[in-house]
Amino acid sequence: GQEVADTTNTETSNSEYKNLIVTQENKITTITLNRPTRKNALTVEMYEEIIVALNTAAKDSSTIAVITGTGDYYCSGNDLENFKNINPSNMNQIATDSGDLLRRYVSAYIDFPKPLIAAINGPAIGVSVTVLGLFDVVFASDNATFSTPFSSLGQSPEGCASYTFPKIMGHAKACEMIMFNKKIDAQEALSSGLVTKVFPQDSFQTSVASALKEIVDLPAKSLLYSKALMRGPELEQLHKTNIAECDRLIERWQSDDCANAIMKFFAGKEKH
Amino acid sequence: GQEVADTTNTETSNSEYKNLIVTQENKITTITLNRPTRKNALTVEMYEEIIVALNTAAKDSSTIAVITGTGDYYCSGNDLENFKNINPSNMNQIATDSGDLLRRYVSAYIDFPKPLIAAINGPAIGVSVTVLGLFDVVFASDNATFSTPFSSLGQSPEGCASYTFPKIMGHAKACEMIMFNKKIDAQEALSSGLVTKVFPQDSFQTSVASALKEIVDLPAKSLLYSKALMRGPELEQLHKTNIAECDRLIERWQSDDCANAIMKFFAGKEKH
Amino acid sequence: GQEVADTTNTETSNSEYKNLIVTQENKITTITLNRPTRKNALTVEMYEEIIVALNTAAKDSSTIAVITGTGDYYCSGNDLENFKNINPSNMNQIATDSGDLLRRYVSAYIDFPKPLIAAINGPAIGVSVTVLGLFDVVFASDNATFSTPFSSLGQSPEGCASYTFPKIMGHAKACEMIMFNKKIDAQEALSSGLVTKVFPQDSFQTSVASALKEIVDLPAKSLLYSKALMRGPELEQLHKTNIAECDRLIERWQSDDCANAIMKFFAGKEKH
Repeated sequence: GQEVADTTNTETSNSEYKNLIVTQENKITTITLNRPTRKNALTVEMYEEIIVALNTAAKDSSTIAVITGTGDYYCSGNDLENFKNINPSNMNQIATDSGDLLRRYVSAYIDFPKPLIAAINGPAIGVSVTVLGLFDVVFASDNATFSTPFSSLGQSPEGCASYTFPKIMGHAKACEMIMFNKKIDAQEALSSGLVTKVFPQDSFQTSVASALKEIVDLPAKSLLYSKALMRGPELEQLHKTNIAECDRLIERWQSDDCANAIMKFFAGKEKH
Repeated sequence: GQEVADTTNTETSNSEYKNLIVTQENKITTITLNRPTRKNALTVEMYEEIIVALNTAAKDSSTIAVITGTGDYYCSGNDLENFKNINPSNMNQIATDSGDLLRRYVSAYIDFPKPLIAAINGPAIGVSVTVLGLFDVVFASDNATFSTPFSSLGQSPEGCASYTFPKIMGHAKACEMIMFNKKIDAQEALSSGLVTKVFPQDSFQTSVASALKEIVDLPAKSLLYSKALMRGPELEQLHKTNIAECDRLIERWQSDDCANAIMKFFAGKEKH
Repeated sequence: GQEVADTTNTETSNSEYKNLIVTQENKITTITLNRPTRKNALTVEMYEEIIVALNTAAKDSSTIAVITGTGDYYCSGNDLENFKNINPSNMNQIATDSGDLLRRYVSAYIDFPKPLIAAINGPAIGVSVTVLGLFDVVFASDNATFSTPFSSLGQSPEGCASYTFPKIMGHAKACEMIMFNKKIDAQEALSSGLVTKVFPQDSFQTSVASALKEIVDLPAKSLLYSKALMRGPELEQLHKTNIAECDRLIERWQSDDCANAIMKFFAGKEKH
């Protein structure tokens, strides 16, 4: 059928972001991680930009928000360059600031009121995986992988994964991922309940677009209120978990375990 | 082997119900939705009758209670005729009364102390699906389907599904059903944990009867106390969820979203 | 590669245990149930020994603890001989003491701070299955089975299964096991989320040893703190559940349901 022209149908792109492409089109706000040469690894600046983008999308006229990545990777996690060139004398301050940034970052996901959808276009690592338990829909390309190698880096989980992963997949399977560094593929992520649907890589973008179209045609308020009913009873626990995880990471980042693991990482990179 | 005649073996049928057949036989109280010409859609009167039947079964001499349906459908959900011919001037009163009825209806499931078993003989829709998370066993015929198209009707979940579904199948899969109207078949319901066991349609009744016989031969008190141990810690949350869901529906039923969806539904029906 | 000799590499075995073999080697404390002629059924003495072994392992220099069994069985559960020759005049005292012992036993699992790993070398029954929800990793031989026939013995769940099992596998599947005595095999336990990984029986020991080696090479503190983050928010509920389950069993053990079931059990054994 023919439709009346809709002013919200005009794509708008916001140029205030350096590492993101943020568009609003057809009632969908899309936040695209756009640092493909670094596999969309998250710098301190990107964390801040994503917080702004999520808080803006929470209030704009869109019905849903989608996060995806440009290039081969969805997101390679926290950019370990963030740990480089840190002066030991202000290590404690930097760790505390980083913990605060991470807490605000994860809070932006916890408090996002509209349906939040991930379109995982390729490998996902670390914090880009742990926050997936805070999304409402996770579409994955069949070449996507999911890994959270915290303990091998002397670190500990964040993104509320210590709460959401056991709830989604049971304690034993959650431990495999967030304690024992197991990397899983798209099919395993689907059967563990972390992923909603897997699409073939070559038609991923069109399949996602078509699935999103079905969603945004639903009454926006019903979606908003349904999400509030589902998440409401666990919001307090999610914020408590976020704080506990960030507090622990502030300690971990200053530990010998972490220093040794990061040094090994950069030593390995410089050899190649 | 030969068995001694048992006075509890006498089937009794209660004629006080207009839309249900309620029998008590061999320590099993069976509540059968009996409005097959309307696919067992629930009228206001049926909600009240089921509340009475559950409260009665909670106190009778049976060990378990079973809910099933006559005809091709298990239950097509809330009868949308309930929404018809509503005078806009008392819309608020009707919505409030309906919310109160729904709250009492779902409470009867939450508080049912004995093992509660569903025998899903065919398609199940809406509130007949959402309350399944409050059952202890769900047997399904292989032609059963499960759909909860709330948001397409401008509504929001009830039956405590906003709490039980994420707990059973994880948040992402729960969203597919209760936010995005995904209809699943018996095998999908089995693998998502909503259904206990699937039987072929042509032997469904005898398979269920045989499975029930095994259950009722177990010590009644062990079943009662095991259920109390499992449900006890979440009873308070279930009642809170029930109240929040009904409060939201009272608002939704009076919304334009809902009015438009119901009008479309009846317009569609009148064309055919 | 060649490795520097490690003093923690010396196997030590503790001779203070009569029914267990407890060794510490390569940062792994292994607690082996060693009563193979009785299928590693747990006597009152063994419950006490396992509490001591777990409390000791919690404080020793190991990174992880592993529980396994000698012979064909992992563990056949509570030794029903514990119920034999009980003088009815002090039945209440014995039930109360047994409930207290069970509560302390399960608490030792709840409070164990390091990664706790089960290596299920064969059939597992009763309390050896229910506590599995308190482990962090469960490796199973492909000939392992899992059964918790409480209600057929007039009893009710323990080991926090009434809380952990619904969380792991959903309420309906949990009921099948802990209310309706369903015995599941290793593959079913894997797909229900109770088991982490299944290995073929003939290479079970070497497969487990190799998987453990990967785990113990990870930073010990990251494992400890990750587990604390995951379990922390539910510790209070786990202890509450443990107390409620033990209180119920103190009543159940003195019930006619239980007396009749135990008498049948021994009558059946004496016939064969």
